[in-house]
Formats: sequence, structure tokens, C-alpha cells
Amino acid sequence: MSDVDAAADRETDVVVVGAGLAGLTAARWLDGRDVDVRVLDARPQVGGRLRSREVDGVVVDLGTQWVGPGQRHLRRLAADLGCEQVRQRAEGDALRYDGNGTHRGKTAIDSLPLPARLNLGAAVRLLDRRSGEVPLEAPHRAPDATAWDETTLATWRDGALRTRRARALFDAAVRSSFGSEPADLSYLSVLFAVRAAGGFERLTGLDGRPRTRIAGGVQTLADRMAADLSGRVHTDSPVRAIAHDEDGVVVRTDDESVAARHVVVATAASRVACLDFDPHLPARRAALSRRPPHGAVVTCVATYEVPFWRPDLSGDVLDEEGPVCRTRDVSPLDGERGVLVGQLFGNAARRWSERTRSERRSMVLDRFAEYFGDRAVEATGYTDVAWPNVPWSGGCCGAAFPPGILTTVGEALREPVGRVHWAGAETATRWPGHMDGGVQAGKRAAAELVGRLRTD
Amino acid sequence: MSDVDAAADRETDVVVVGAGLAGLTAARWLDGRDVDVRVLDARPQVGGRLRSREVDGVVVDLGTQWVGPGQRHLRRLAADLGCEQVRQRAEGDALRYDGNGTHRGKTAIDSLPLPARLNLGAAVRLLDRRSGEVPLEAPHRAPDATAWDETTLATWRDGALRTRRARALFDAAVRSSFGSEPADLSYLSVLFAVRAAGGFERLTGLDGRPRTRIAGGVQTLADRMAADLSGRVHTDSPVRAIAHDEDGVVVRTDDESVAARHVVVATAASRVACLDFDPHLPARRAALSRRPPHGAVVTCVATYEVPFWRPDLSGDVLDEEGPVCRTRDVSPLDGERGVLVGQLFGNAARRWSERTRSERRSMVLDRFAEYFGDRAVEATGYTDVAWPNVPWSGGCCGAAFPPGILTTVGEALREPVGRVHWAGAETATRWPGHMDGGVQAGKRAAAELVGRLRTD
Repeated sequence: MSDVDAAADRETDVVVVGAGLAGLTAARWLDGRDVDVRVLDARPQVGGRLRSREVDGVVVDLGTQWVGPGQRHLRRLAADLGCEQVRQRAEGDALRYDGNGTHRGKTAIDSLPLPARLNLGAAVRLLDRRSGEVPLEAPHRAPDATAWDETTLATWRDGALRTRRARALFDAAVRSSFGSEPADLSYLSVLFAVRAAGGFERLTGLDGRPRTRIAGGVQTLADRMAADLSGRVHTDSPVRAIAHDEDGVVVRTDDESVAARHVVVATAASRVACLDFDPHLPARRAALSRRPPHGAVVTCVATYEVPFWRPDLSGDVLDEEGPVCRTRDVSPLDGERGVLVGQLFGNAARRWSERTRSERRSMVLDRFAEYFGDRAVEATGYTDVAWPNVPWSGGCCGAAFPPGILTTVGEALREPVGRVHWAGAETATRWPGHMDGGVQAGKRAAAELVGRLRTD
Repeated sequence: MSDVDAAADRETDVVVVGAGLAGLTAARWLDGRDVDVRVLDARPQVGGRLRSREVDGVVVDLGTQWVGPGQRHLRRLAADLGCEQVRQRAEGDALRYDGNGTHRGKTAIDSLPLPARLNLGAAVRLLDRRSGEVPLEAPHRAPDATAWDETTLATWRDGALRTRRARALFDAAVRSSFGSEPADLSYLSVLFAVRAAGGFERLTGLDGRPRTRIAGGVQTLADRMAADLSGRVHTDSPVRAIAHDEDGVVVRTDDESVAARHVVVATAASRVACLDFDPHLPARRAALSRRPPHGAVVTCVATYEVPFWRPDLSGDVLDEEGPVCRTRDVSPLDGERGVLVGQLFGNAARRWSERTRSERRSMVLDRFAEYFGDRAVEATGYTDVAWPNVPWSGGCCGAAFPPGILTTVGEALREPVGRVHWAGAETATRWPGHMDGGVQAGKRAAAELVGRLRTD
């Protein structure tokens, strides 16, 4: 056994740090291959950025929630766990709010004035085509990677989008997908995310294709995996330090130290910077955890006696001006109650995270009234989660890459450091930063380990 | 007293977190006004990013070291502490290395081909003039702040510098000043830094004006302040958590909890993200600690029997191509020994941080031989510090602001959060991120506190 484990309190094969989707998937996969695992999470509950809560008698999702097209890792996991999917209602018109009022159309794009629609369409086609040049396994090897990575998405947008309305819709779509502003994002990193999701409209949900949700709330996924791993998942256990050498690792929390053969780090990307590694991480891997900021999201849910906006409207709103960027209908299937979820992203999310919940409630209901009429202020229930305020999360959404990261330190993203392996959703090659990416990352880390456990 | 201090092990007026230049200055200032202070630092020694060490019988600086023109806060502190300044030798020619070989001139700019020199001169004048529009107290209020903050310095450079040689020298100068690549930096943040230092050539040392160093090593500044505060400075005490309410604060390390009326946070900017604040920080203040990455620096020192490059050459080299970006002569005043310091920045610093010291030694001496001839490989001593590997530092250099930070969350930089005050060098309005900025920030935080301590 290892030199570093002299004083460990217990032993296992693999320690998994973080009980979000990636960490639990890795643990589940290893457990299924008779590898002894111990999952440690800082929070009082499992699920990371998945969070479901009952409000006014209805279970709602307050973190990440939609299952997008082509997210096969996530769909397969849900099926394995016996979790049903609920189809997001798509009947009725979507609204676009542009400061002057609401505009109706099948999708937000459809209600744009023609010049803006043509301009946006051409820009999106260019983005999609160019994203095809970005290799999913190594975005830094794209032909113009350096130049693209030195540019912000805002700079690209100013060149590609000549009409004010096209720019406003583009910004809102980006914000609602990354939780970040176009100025925060490397143009290359956006091309990569577009390719990894199969197109810009698909990534941002502008395609109007129905998404699904997980019946009973998305946290069910985490709860069922944790139940299957019963006794091997420990919450309220923030990991402080990871010592590692050729022979093994020792992972230390405030209460115990665990010796293991390997460790899988599946925390929020930015929390890696707070772990004391001995020996220290290679500079490029360390830079990855310090540099990509997380996007910021506030998710607000209001419940109503009935979904009064139906059947005319779908409940889908893209608001280019107000703090609530994206609104959707998440009413229960029976249609007897109405539930709207409104989300704030980026700067607006940070600003409103500093206000009280009751201030947010009245702002959100006012916005809903602007879209759907005065009945919207008569909510029977309201709750929200301001993710920038949640410890251990780093703001929700995946990691957002500012310029200059992918081409310089990006190659270190998935590379194990000795016996330390990486499984956060931002290490995925499909839907990075999304739930699907978390599942893919967890499986990839587990597969990597199964090979290593056989040989050493 | 406060609700949060129920179980504190000890009490004081003000806890200062971090014993770098900013933290020690704040503590010294408060102590001089009969305020009871306790300084807690995670490392085994004081000084933060100041580090002096004896190599081959000569004391050399391995962190930050030069005292620049107009750095009055730093000069006054040095005088107060009885620390003498040593003038950086500036006789002889500077070298510029461009991949094809070395070029001599009074400064690195002087040896540029004429078209590149004119191009660079015009760009620098534009930068200096535009920096005048950036208010030092509130850079986000500059007339075009949003557009400038949405642009990387790399994008600006590609527009302003048409010749390849001008771009290469500009990049090297930026890298050597920020420890970051032009793609990492918001154009607005660079304009701010230029104004705060009094011009681009002054900021980057391209002006050829002699700098000074601190006799006996720059760490003397920290050691003398700590000695004056004897018994009130505690090393090996990483702070984990800060609880704060209207009445007071409690600061917790692994070993003790200290109740106080206020706390001054003077750690490296990125370490703030690892402190558990209760209640959590406002989202914008939290974003500031998560988002600006630190620059990266590796400082390498070689000693020689004599300064063999004199009198022809000054020892000053700007290398646009190799990993060693900036080299200078830091020989002792008596001139009997020769000492060269070579520094790597940004991507090169991160890459070479992952190599062994002996690999760095042979690379550095080879570069010195390229500049000064074969005698350079016969060093009598060598040492280095790879700052990206140093725990608690975040990479050395000040915080570097990527696009989109200053205009969106920048206003939270110095704003106290209840009883939590901020004193890192990146909060300064003159020479932010430099030693002078650290001293200014420490004094400003202390002054802020003296007022508050009187009234509450």
C-alpha cells in the first residue's frame, strides 16, 4: 500500500468526491463491476445542481431540469433507474418580449421582424457550419483555434449581427444556455458547445422542439442512484485535501481520512481550486479549476390554480430586456394546476441573487403579468433558488470558458493526474456542462478506472 | 457582542487574513492607532508573494521585486521600515531576442525595425491617451466601458498593430507585466492598469528608466512589519470560515476561532472563493473571487563569479520567442558577483511549472547563453520558484481580469460586506496587483476600519 495512507481511518478502492450526476454515475458504474467505492459530498443532500422541491403541492425542479434532444446518456440512465420522462408541452404560441411588448410566434425566432430573422438565420448557419471544424475530443486543435479562442463571443456577434433585434435575441439565447454573457465566453468555447449539442438552436432551445423532464423531479435520478449505493454515500462531508502518490491516495474530510487506490473528482469545476492537493496539481490542470467561471442562474417557480395561459400560448417566453430571461410551462401532466418556471441568467442572476426572495417574487410575478396578463400575479405558491448563493455549486450551469483557456490549458481537462481522475460535467464531449454531459463524464471516468484497477 | 461568537476561543478588534504586503500594512496601520489586531496566514512564513532567498551566498528575490517609478506608497513604507533601496543597474545596452537572434539598443523598443517601431509607438500613444478616459476609482464608468470590457486585448492588438515584430514585442511586454496572455485580458482592464501605473511603457518597464530593489531582499519589508507586530502574527493558520453579522465576526482556522469586530481579507484574490462565508457573499463579490485568474510567473536566478556581460550590455533582455520572457541583471552593488534573473510568464510559466527544477535550470542557462555567450552556462548557483505550484498564491502576479468582469461586478471590488473588508493588491487604484498597490490597499482598508471602529 501507499506511503500516503499511514494514518487513514478506513480503506476503499475508489473515493468519489461529489455526489452530483457525474460522481454518482461513476460510483454506480464502478459498483456494478464490484469495485468498492465511497462517495463523499459536502452538502446535506445528494444531487449537486439537481434540486427538486415540493411547492404548493407540486414537485418542481429548481436547478437543471430539461432533457434535450440527442441526450442519450441521460435518457439511458433515466430508463435504467425506472424514471419516466414527461414531455414538455409545446402547444400554443411562444412569446418574445423586447422591451416594447410581447410578440407571438411558433418559436421566439418566428416573431422577429424579417431583416432580423434573416440576419440571425445566416449567423446561426455560419456558427453551426464553423462548429463542424471543432474536434469534440480536442477543441484546441481546430484549424483557427488560437484566433477563435482569443476572441469573445461578443466581438464575433458585433461583426455577424447587424440588426439590434437579432443581437438582442442572440444574447438572450446565449445567456439562457450558458448562464454567462457573450463577453464572458471564448468564441471557440461556444463553437465547441454548439458542436457538442448538435447545433446552436438545439443547444439554446430556440428550435422549438419539445424537451422532456423527469417525472417526480430530476432529483429522483440522484436519489435512486444513492439508494442503490446505500451505505457508500456520505453527505455533510466536505473534502479538504487529497494526497496521492504512485501507490495510492488519501482523501481527507473534516472527520475522517480514507485511503484508496484512486480518486475521482466530480465536484463543481471551481471547487477543485479549494482542495489541497499533495503534491500540487500540474499548473495547467490547476489553471482550469481557477479560471473558467461558472454561469449564474436563478430559477423561480410560481404555481396557479389553472394554466390560464393555455391553449393560446405555450407558456414559452424569451425576454430580451427584463431580468427574467426564459419562462416555460412546467405544469403537471393532468393539467389541473398551472406552474411556470422563470429563469434569470448571467449578470441579472447575480444582481437578483443579492435581493430577498420576496423581492424576487414580486419582480417575477410582475414580469409574468407583462407576458400573460394580470392573472399572473395571483400565484398560489412561489419558490426559487438563487444558485450563486448556494455553497459548493459555483453558480449552477456548467463551467463557462473565457478566452484563452481552451487552446492553452484545455488539453489538461480530462487527463488523469496520477491516481486523480476527473468527472465533472465540463469534462464531457457531448453536452458539456449539462446533465447529459455529467452522465457521460461519470461513465468515462469509471471506464478509465476499471482499466487502471486491473493493471495496478 | 455578536451572536456569531458564542464559542470563540479568543477575541480581538480586527482579524487580518493574509500576511502579505496588504495584510501586514493594514495590521501595522491599525496597530499604530491602538487597535488590537490578529493576523492569520496559511503559510509557514509571512510575505505572501514576496520571497527572498540566499543562493550561492547572494540574497535574491524570487517573487515580486522591482520598485517602479511613482510607487510612492511602497517607497514610503520602505523608508518607514528603514529598508534601503538599491538602484537597478541600467548601463550598457538592452537586448531583444526575436527568434532569429539578439538585437541591441538602449531599450528593447530601440532595436525594432523602423516600421515596427513607428507602429508600436502610435499604438502605445493611443493606449495611453485612451487610458486617460478610465476613472481610477470606477473603471466601469469609462465612456465606452462596456464595449472595451467585451473585447480581449488580443482583439485590440490585432487591429492596432499591423507589423509582426511590433505584435511580438507588445505581447512579450504584456506577458511580463500581467503574467497573462493578451487573450486572457479585458481591453478595459488593461487601460485601467495603464492609467493606474501612469502609462504603458512605465507599467511594462519598456521605458528603460531604472527601477530600484530593496536591499537585503524584498521580504525584509514583510519580516520587519511582522517583527513590529510580534505575537500578533500567526503563520501556519489557514482560515477556513468567516461568520459575520451586524455585531461582529468569527474567523475559524483548523485550530482556533477568533471573535472580532471586523475582518480584513487580504489573501490572494482567488483564495476568497475557498473561504466559507456565513452568510454567503453577495453574488457579485463572490464572482470577483472566482473569476479573475491570477497571472503565472516562474522566477529563475543564476549566479556567476563575475557579471561577465558588463560593461557592453545591461543584462536586460526581452525575449519574444523563448520561454524566458524577461531577463535582468540583479548583481550585488559591489559588482564582485554576477546575478541574472530570468522570468517566464503566462502559458510558458504554466508549461515549465510542470517540469523539474533541473530541467528548468538547463533550459534557462541555454537561453542565457543565447543572449550573452557560452560563459552563461557556467553558473555557480541556480534556484527558482514556480509560482503556479505554490499553495495559497494563485500563481503570483496580480489578478488578471478577463473580459466582462469590470463592468458587471467590478463595483463590488472594494465595497465592504458588512464587517468584511477587502485589502488584496487587486483592490488598489494605483499599481493594482503590484507591491505598491498592496500597500495602498492595506492602508485604505485600515483607514476604512478606523472610521468604522469609532462609530460602531
